[in-house]
Formats: sequence, structure tokens, C-alpha cells
Amino acid sequence: MTKAAIMGYGTVGSGVAEVLAGNPEKIAWSARQGVELKYILDVRDFPESPFADKIIHDFAVIESDPEVSVVAECIGGATIAYEYVRRCLEAHKSVATSNKELIAEKGLELLGIARDNGVSLMFEGAVGGGIPIIRTLTQYFSGNKINEVFGILNATTNYILTQMNECGLEFGEVLKDAQRRGYAEADPTADVDGIDACRKICILADLSFSRNISPAWVKTTGVRSMTPADTAFAEEMGCAIKLLGRSLRRGDKVTAYVAPHLIPRGKVLYDVNGVMNAVVVNAEGIGDCIFTGAGAGKLPTASAVVADMADAVRHAYEEKRAIWESADESVFFDSDELVSRWYVRSSAAPVEMQRAFDGAVYTAGGECAVLTQPMDARQLAETAGRIPLLSAFRVLD
Amino acid sequence: MTKAAIMGYGTVGSGVAEVLAGNPEKIAWSARQGVELKYILDVRDFPESPFADKIIHDFAVIESDPEVSVVAECIGGATIAYEYVRRCLEAHKSVATSNKELIAEKGLELLGIARDNGVSLMFEGAVGGGIPIIRTLTQYFSGNKINEVFGILNATTNYILTQMNECGLEFGEVLKDAQRRGYAEADPTADVDGIDACRKICILADLSFSRNISPAWVKTTGVRSMTPADTAFAEEMGCAIKLLGRSLRRGDKVTAYVAPHLIPRGKVLYDVNGVMNAVVVNAEGIGDCIFTGAGAGKLPTASAVVADMADAVRHAYEEKRAIWESADESVFFDSDELVSRWYVRSSAAPVEMQRAFDGAVYTAGGECAVLTQPMDARQLAETAGRIPLLSAFRVLD
Repeated sequence: MTKAAIMGYGTVGSGVAEVLAGNPEKIAWSARQGVELKYILDVRDFPESPFADKIIHDFAVIESDPEVSVVAECIGGATIAYEYVRRCLEAHKSVATSNKELIAEKGLELLGIARDNGVSLMFEGAVGGGIPIIRTLTQYFSGNKINEVFGILNATTNYILTQMNECGLEFGEVLKDAQRRGYAEADPTADVDGIDACRKICILADLSFSRNISPAWVKTTGVRSMTPADTAFAEEMGCAIKLLGRSLRRGDKVTAYVAPHLIPRGKVLYDVNGVMNAVVVNAEGIGDCIFTGAGAGKLPTASAVVADMADAVRHAYEEKRAIWESADESVFFDSDELVSRWYVRSSAAPVEMQRAFDGAVYTAGGECAVLTQPMDARQLAETAGRIPLLSAFRVLD
Repeated sequence: MTKAAIMGYGTVGSGVAEVLAGNPEKIAWSARQGVELKYILDVRDFPESPFADKIIHDFAVIESDPEVSVVAECIGGATIAYEYVRRCLEAHKSVATSNKELIAEKGLELLGIARDNGVSLMFEGAVGGGIPIIRTLTQYFSGNKINEVFGILNATTNYILTQMNECGLEFGEVLKDAQRRGYAEADPTADVDGIDACRKICILADLSFSRNISPAWVKTTGVRSMTPADTAFAEEMGCAIKLLGRSLRRGDKVTAYVAPHLIPRGKVLYDVNGVMNAVVVNAEGIGDCIFTGAGAGKLPTASAVVADMADAVRHAYEEKRAIWESADESVFFDSDELVSRWYVRSSAAPVEMQRAFDGAVYTAGGECAVLTQPMDARQLAETAGRIPLLSAFRVLD
């Protein structure tokens, strides 16, 4: 029997407490010993909670208790969470977290501290909610070179895009509805501006290409400027619009970016709607492997954290963890160099669009849209010339 | 540095040799030491092979070589393969295999022998080709009760059904074409009669419900009697026909079966075509998690075997393996008790079908088809009464 602590009793933290309490035998089997919750750290008290007697307010209690061998970090952010996780690892406690900001920004350093202290830092819940993509990348694709990893990584924006598409609504209306339903935060910036997806694709790139890809290098476009005209044109063209995080290898170099894409019907990810997430891994010898599941939510994420806690306990004295190397920007190439077809929308005259882009012109409401020939971002700008583009999204072919 | 052996130099065995030779650094990183191929056991010689110098004909050489710590079993079947795997495990060598017949029939016994000898028996390649479903079930769903597992488990039949659907061809024609392309064996029985899918769903059920489900208990229907009329009616009804292996829990009991199903458009697995496989796991707290990838092929399967070999080496002295318990048939309930809508086809008069089944009747070529109300298999037989049913497939709703 070992003891566990939870730091932060919000949505994920309370889910971790529930999952731990709900399946003690399965967790004990997986961890090869019982895992008992001893503390929940939070600034607040929760007198109504079934776990009220576990609540503490002083981190030092966890840090100094030798009985506690594994800690779930459910605080969020990369300030207090960073300090507490570092100190847990230094106190020889393994940590499981779903905090993508922490891992994308500080993962390399914290994984080093974990290694130096003979414990584990696990973060299955940081990407893809309930989808086991982290352990799959860490453990499974070991015999195969990964060429590309991409996916629908943010449940909030996928819900918004699905609703815009199905109901023909404006972005602002759907966002408000998503906030009412609890699918979007009161401050939706990290989701709708692609920041969350950026952190997640950085973590997937780190693991896929064994190099630390900084979120600062990654060109990131969100969905805030999406209009019903875009989703309507896309549908007419036989495509769905999805916000993708994407990272790929070209020789020894890697790129990563976040942007809306048009996905043609029948292609992978076209049908992944609502709050579902999906990750595609393309590896030599295996081809595309696609992992789909609930991208968010208290229990899927909490389940991922608890699976990590059990793994950390089982492997307490073994080197079994994600690693990647530090890297400077010279390993990175600009995603603008990637060649693809583009969807462009403009208020220019259809004949002008036709002349510039040489493709079928779709018109509606005084605007028009075209799917271009394959080209990179610079060529797109040159081809457009003086035509002002209201939207320009890559097509995932 | 440790030494490895391959038993059986056919498609998968030669793929394992290629993958081992092709990515030594990644495998060494994953195994935490180098893994060098020392022997390939086969009855034949392969003078043209780049691995000709590794070929041996005497199993005892592997069995008695203490340098060999891990063996890939690529012989197939459950006779010689069974004996050699047992003796490898007893000689304290871990074994990785993609042999579903061996694991479905003898897995429980062999896993016990592995445990008793402190080594591992790994079988990621046995189900789902390149999809990492075995380790996901073994390691990830530990905090959550699994309710159901099902999927498209056989690439040959999925290719055949996809071709029948897209080209309106007869089963026999498509089978011949698949044999020409190498997607079907000269003797296709195990694939087209559902035997292969039966073995695979048994393995998934073993892992999901921790009990040994015998292939002998599992009602198994293949695709041999499928006609172009079935695929045409299904398409008119907005459905695709897929051969599914399915296992689910009801209280403390479990069932499993293999049969063609109609999958409505927009539902999970509808779009999984050709030689792709997909597995859906439904667990409490997580919901549906879907894993899709190439279901067969030399390199996907060989990659799975090599990933297992690396894992076995890394965990050489640790209890990290699949386990399930022996069970008698009292844990099993008859899949006929499951309630679902059914697709039925008959040469009866449309008015008779309408009267019996109370649904929209589709007619073509002197036959008609209906989607029934939800009912179990006994109720279906009662409802049909004297109407002879040419096909009766469940709908996956």
C-alpha cells in the first residue's frame, strides 16, 4: 500500500479523487499495490465533499511526508504548479499531471529532475483527454521512425466549428452557447486562439521527434476570425473545417504549426465532430494510426491521470519515462515552406479570383472562394497579388 | 547488448528481421540496450537473404543459448509454435508473437508459464496489426471498468466487403481478386468464416474482462453468404456492412460473438474501409475510445512484434504482462439474448414483410429487405414466423 496526494481540487482534481476511490482493485492490480489517497491540497475548504477530511492547505505537508510516493498535479498553469511539481520530484515523489502548459514549457527541465531523483513525471492527460496517445508515442513507436503527427487537439474549438457548420451560426453566438454548456471557459482565449492546441502539438512533437520544440517557434492561428461564409463554402466544396495542430519531419528538421484546415470528405478526421479529439501518427512501416476519443471532460482526463499514477507506482524504481533532448531553433523550419492546396475567400470579383487562382470559383453573399493549386505560403501571397484574402486555410490532402 | 532469435522466416518473420536491422538506435533506446539478431529458425535455407548467415534448422540451438533473451515467434498455428514458445519461456526467454490462434487457445497457460519463469509473453501483433490495442488494454484502462469492446478485426473480410459495396460485385469474384493482390490467403477459410476475428475478439475479451473466453463458446458467422443484394440494400438504408467481433459485459457475465453488422452512416466504424482495422473500447468514465490503423501487412505486424521485443528486454526482471483468469462457461451468456434492430432480407412478398416487421420495405430484384424494431434473436425468429430469411444481420446503433 502506498499513499497519494492530489494538488488542486477543481474539475480534474475532484475527478482524480473519484476515480481513485471508485476502482481500488483495478488500480491496485495495475500498480501492483494499493494506492490510498492521503491528502488533497487546495486553498479552499470543501466541507460538503466526501473527501473533506483529506483537504490540507500547506504544500509542505505533502513534500515532507515520506509515505506519499505519488502526487497528481491538478492546479494548472506553469507558476505554482511548476514550483510544487519540481519540489515533489526533488522529494522523490512521482508526479502525474494533465497540465499541458507546464509540460510544453517546462517538461524538458522537469523530466531531467525526475530522472535525477529516480522518479517519474507522467502526463497522459495533457493531450487528447482520454486517448492514450502519450504512452503510445513513448512506448510503442520505438521501432519506427515517425514522419508526421497531427490532430484535432482542442475540444472547445472543435465543438464550436461543428456547431457553426451544422447550424450556420456566427462564431460569437456559438461561443456563448458553448460557455453556457460548460464546453468553453469564461476566458476562452487559450482555446479559441489556438494556444492550447499549440502546447499540445509541441508535446506530441517533443515525443515524436525526440527534440524540445518551443511553443514560441510555432505559428499559431485560432478560429476567432472564422465566419459562417467559411463553413458554408467549405461544405459546398465537400470539406469540413477543423483546427489542427500539426508537426512533421523533413530530413533532420522539424516544423510545427496550428491553423484551421479544410478536410475533404472521406479523409481521416473529416468525421471527428463535437468535443471529440483525434490524433494521427504516421510512422514508417506502419502508416497512419488514428486515435479518437473524448477530448476533454472531468472523468476522461482524471482517468488518464490515475492510469499514470498507477504506472508511476508500479515502475517506481525503473527508468520508464518520456525523454527528449534540448534543441535550438536551428532544428526547426518554417511551416510557411510547406506546400498544400489552399482555400481562399475574398470579396474580390469572381473573374479576378478565377484569373489569379485558376480554379472553380464558388460565390455567395457578395464573396467568393477558390481551392488553389498546391503551393507554399509565399507563393500564395504572390499569386493573390493585390486581391485581399479574407481567409486562407490549407487543405489537408 | 542482448541477443534475439526469430522462429519462422515467412512474411512476418522476415519483416521482424528488417525492422530490427533498420532502426537499431531507436530499439536500443526503447529496450535500454542493444538488441542483436543472432538466429533465424526455419526448415528452409535462404541463400539470397541478407540474413542468410543467421538461418538455423535446430530449435535446440536457440533453447540452449543463454545469450538469447528474447524470441519472436513467427511460425503460426498452435502446434509446433506452442511447443517452441513453451520451451522458450521455460528456458527463461521472453517471447513476442503475432499468433492469435496460439494466444486465443493457449494464452492462459503460456502466460502462467511466463510468469513462473520470470519472463514475458507479448502479443501486440496478434490483434489489429499496427494498432497498439493490446498494450492499451493491458496498461491504460486500469482505472476504469470496461463495458464493451468491438471492432473490425479482419483486414481480408473488410477489404472484400468494401469492394463488394463499392463495385457491386459478387463475393466469389472479389475473393479471387483479393487472393491475386495478396490480401487473401490461398485457403481463405480462417478469414472469411470469421475464425480469425473470433480468435481476436477472444483475446480482446480476455484482456478487457480478465477472464479466459474460449473461442469454442463464441458464435461465429463469416461473410461467405453475403450477396451484392445485401450491400445494395444496406447502402439504400444509409448503412455499411462490416464484420464485427464484439464482446460486452452485463453485470458479472460476458458475451462475445462474430457476425456481419449494418452500421448507419455517421456512426463509429462506418468509414473504416479496405484493409484498415479499428477497435472501439467503451469504458466507464472515458466513453468510446477508437483505435484505427492498418490491420495487416508485413511491416505493421512486424513493427508490433519488435516493439514487444524491446519492451520485453526492458522489463526483463519485472512483472509487466497481460493476465487473466481461467473461467468456465458459467461466466458466459448467449449473444442471442442481445437486443438490437436487425436487417432482414427475404424473397417473400413485400406486403408479408411489411405485416411481419412493421417497417419500411425496400425492394429490388424480386427480393425485399426491412430494418426491424429492436429485439433479441429468439423474438426475431418468432416475428419472422414462416417467412424465410435469406440474411439477418444486427444493426449497430
